[in-house]
Amino acid sequence: MTAARQYETLELNFDGAAPAGSEASIRLVAEFTHDGKSTAVKGFYRGKGKYSVRFLPEETGDYTYRVTGEVKAEGSFTAAPSDEKHHGVVRPDGIHIRHEDGTWITTFGTTVYALAHQNKALIDETIQSLKYSPFNKVRMCVFPKHYNYNHNDPEYYPFEKRSDGSWDPDHPCFAFWDAFEFRLNQLFDLGIQVDLILFHPYDRWGFASMPQSDNLTYLDYLIRRFAAYPNIWWSLANEYDLCLAKSMDDWCQIEEFVASNDPYHHMLGNHQCFQPWPVERKNVTHMSWQTKQVSRVAEMQRKYGKPVMIDECRYEGTLPEYWGNMSAQDMTAQFWKTTVQGGYCTHGETFYPGEDEIVWWAKGGKLRGESPSRIAFLRKIVERLPGPLDPCVRDLFTLFEGKTEEEIRAAIAKLPAEKRGFTAAVCALDPVERERFFHSEYTYAGHVGEKAYLWYLGDQCPAVFPISLPENGKYSVTVIDTWEMEKEKVLKDVSGGVTVRLPGKNYVAVLAEKTD
Amino acid sequence: MTAARQYETLELNFDGAAPAGSEASIRLVAEFTHDGKSTAVKGFYRGKGKYSVRFLPEETGDYTYRVTGEVKAEGSFTAAPSDEKHHGVVRPDGIHIRHEDGTWITTFGTTVYALAHQNKALIDETIQSLKYSPFNKVRMCVFPKHYNYNHNDPEYYPFEKRSDGSWDPDHPCFAFWDAFEFRLNQLFDLGIQVDLILFHPYDRWGFASMPQSDNLTYLDYLIRRFAAYPNIWWSLANEYDLCLAKSMDDWCQIEEFVASNDPYHHMLGNHQCFQPWPVERKNVTHMSWQTKQVSRVAEMQRKYGKPVMIDECRYEGTLPEYWGNMSAQDMTAQFWKTTVQGGYCTHGETFYPGEDEIVWWAKGGKLRGESPSRIAFLRKIVERLPGPLDPCVRDLFTLFEGKTEEEIRAAIAKLPAEKRGFTAAVCALDPVERERFFHSEYTYAGHVGEKAYLWYLGDQCPAVFPISLPENGKYSVTVIDTWEMEKEKVLKDVSGGVTVRLPGKNYVAVLAEKTD
Repeated sequence: MTAARQYETLELNFDGAAPAGSEASIRLVAEFTHDGKSTAVKGFYRGKGKYSVRFLPEETGDYTYRVTGEVKAEGSFTAAPSDEKHHGVVRPDGIHIRHEDGTWITTFGTTVYALAHQNKALIDETIQSLKYSPFNKVRMCVFPKHYNYNHNDPEYYPFEKRSDGSWDPDHPCFAFWDAFEFRLNQLFDLGIQVDLILFHPYDRWGFASMPQSDNLTYLDYLIRRFAAYPNIWWSLANEYDLCLAKSMDDWCQIEEFVASNDPYHHMLGNHQCFQPWPVERKNVTHMSWQTKQVSRVAEMQRKYGKPVMIDECRYEGTLPEYWGNMSAQDMTAQFWKTTVQGGYCTHGETFYPGEDEIVWWAKGGKLRGESPSRIAFLRKIVERLPGPLDPCVRDLFTLFEGKTEEEIRAAIAKLPAEKRGFTAAVCALDPVERERFFHSEYTYAGHVGEKAYLWYLGDQCPAVFPISLPENGKYSVTVIDTWEMEKEKVLKDVSGGVTVRLPGKNYVAVLAEKTD
Repeated sequence: MTAARQYETLELNFDGAAPAGSEASIRLVAEFTHDGKSTAVKGFYRGKGKYSVRFLPEETGDYTYRVTGEVKAEGSFTAAPSDEKHHGVVRPDGIHIRHEDGTWITTFGTTVYALAHQNKALIDETIQSLKYSPFNKVRMCVFPKHYNYNHNDPEYYPFEKRSDGSWDPDHPCFAFWDAFEFRLNQLFDLGIQVDLILFHPYDRWGFASMPQSDNLTYLDYLIRRFAAYPNIWWSLANEYDLCLAKSMDDWCQIEEFVASNDPYHHMLGNHQCFQPWPVERKNVTHMSWQTKQVSRVAEMQRKYGKPVMIDECRYEGTLPEYWGNMSAQDMTAQFWKTTVQGGYCTHGETFYPGEDEIVWWAKGGKLRGESPSRIAFLRKIVERLPGPLDPCVRDLFTLFEGKTEEEIRAAIAKLPAEKRGFTAAVCALDPVERERFFHSEYTYAGHVGEKAYLWYLGDQCPAVFPISLPENGKYSVTVIDTWEMEKEKVLKDVSGGVTVRLPGKNYVAVLAEKTD
């Protein structure tokens, strides 16, 4: 009898004859039945006559299965309850995300694009670095990367080549996939979500310009192998809008193919350089957003009603490139700004390398920056909150969104007189100027119902900070130096309007927690 | 014979009977003739039967004058050459400013709105602080100020009151004007330009809501007294668009009145909260701009062809208000960003006060911040340059300005192929998103012809910085730590493409100077 546990991948292995045609899109289906409900999942070929089917049991108890196609088999197993270290697939719940078992998760992402394409020693080092890091999500590519500071060839490529020299996704390079999976397993064991980047434009080998039929064959094989990983997310691309070989129709087909072939409805997003992928599309679970202006997280949460992931907001480091030379202070600030609003931020580290060209953001290795320890400090604070943070939004910010100029004027007329003059002056600005105003004066704040309030002051250095708490509760107030990683409880048993004394410096946060 | 000197105010004093009606708009004109050219200037009444006429000789040599009206007189004087400490009225020259004698000036402004409305000891302290500060321009109000941290009454008000309790600009309070002038004289002696704010909204006494006829009477008197100060600038208002008692027509009339009554064509601007005053108007010499986004200086220089003064960009301090709690690092950065582009920046200091409510930005006193010493460091560097800085502008930024979408597409089609894809992706963004992109990746740089190049890296921390110098010249390259105020010459006799090693930290500037 097969051993199985809830929220952990079950693998069934079979021997048979090698498939006659495609080694990717083979005929192999397993139907799993539990409590009278059946799920069909496709199996995959792994070379040398070996076939596998992977299944993710999301419920405890007895399952039966029936395998048909290239190999035939039947059997049963019992899924034991989760070991409580594992909580199942992450899926959206409104603007937040939680595991299948209901546990909320706040992701603290990092970026190691070509993690899997380095030599074994370097990947081992990366895995060790991740183990002792605050990061519980990593963005990484299936295809190798060609770009500045990325000139090495990987040991394996995902496919064999056709006689004409083109890549042949019908013939996977099994060594590549075995090695890749070894790393996915390690990341799963570390509790790290893998935002798996399926396509990207930084290529010299031809993976970015395969015909669409080959793209879909590649995806078919990948989904058969990886969909049962509880910790996988689908990132259709890194900077899809710079992938010049693909049209919007191609992308829509890719999105639909991934969504409809994934039995578990993993998180699915598409990362852009300029033009965000349409988040409103039904297959898209969250906004995977490259932006430096994280003041817009709450705006996007309101616009789409989905989780907002800041998947690129410059990286901590010293590269000459603008995107790769942010200070540790600014990287830390991006995390605080995003996280207090209930968004999810992603780190990267880009220190100017020596001749080895090892830069964390692409190849991994050791973390050298000063932001990870601060991100760990933030993570600890956020994970002690009684639930996910929702953004506190000032009235003025929502007055304009999605409204005609006439509707805006009507809304202003309804405001109390003392607010009307200032608001009307903002209203008189054109949309570009209004946006500049909102962005430049954004206040970063979130709350967990009336149980907790968290403000992040960023580049503001006030000596006093007036806050407004509910009258019907007692709160403690903690002043947090997010850079020095110090906390001090400054008020106890307060309610209503309170003025908090602050140190008058950058990078301060204020946390109010209900104590009664 | 009257003693006179070029670029210094000449004052002629007369006794007579008190004027019968208005003490402001009196009949008193002096015609000054020099080299066959005549200038008529109006005189003013200063109480107790005393009349004065002030004149600013801008050329050396012999002058005659003839006074008519309430008093009659004739005379002559010789204007001696300037003592070389004084250079005359500041006026625009393209996007830059220079004194009447041709000397370029880069202003380093500060803000002391209610400087003149404090007690004598405090004003004395302010003047001493300015003397040892880097600031050569101060923004200050004629009218007292009522606002947060501004609740004291001044010793004098500008006018007497009518029997109905309203202010009577036809009857100036001479003690006010004498005291105010005493401070203008001190500022002139310190070489400080006075950006004199004629109206503002922060008022509890009624000065902000006088009828327009009273506004003009007030301005008439003020211009008669102050126009001959070489160091005066007219700032029609602080935040004109929050002065709810005045219409755009009122403002246009005020602007025209000031410009047409000022014989010397002093600098004339109007400071806004939201909607910039139309800089293209012919009387307006420069953009007096409240904005936090100083990345837009060069855009406005191109748009208007006039000098751009960042007259409010948040203040260094610890107030709870957003505008008043910027770090010294950020205040310093605003100066560097603005100045390297050939713009002109203005400082303010707003530390949370004790019960005395003394905040520099309104009342003066002592400077406590850490930015003034850095601004002094910047001033020294800029004043050693061989001329005023013009902005270095990347092609991409000018591709969109003032163009239709069709013209933009045509311009992109003409680009070299390797630039086209990226540029087209930027082009596809809507105007709001384009603006966000441009602002977030702005590179702050300026040059003095081919004689000097100055880059400010702000929040970028590269370890290497590739620069491109003309091939036909030898340059030295200096790395500047703008916060630590350290300079190091790192390269000598270089030309063409050069890579500069940098410390990989915030707030670094690079200066390349032609040495052959």
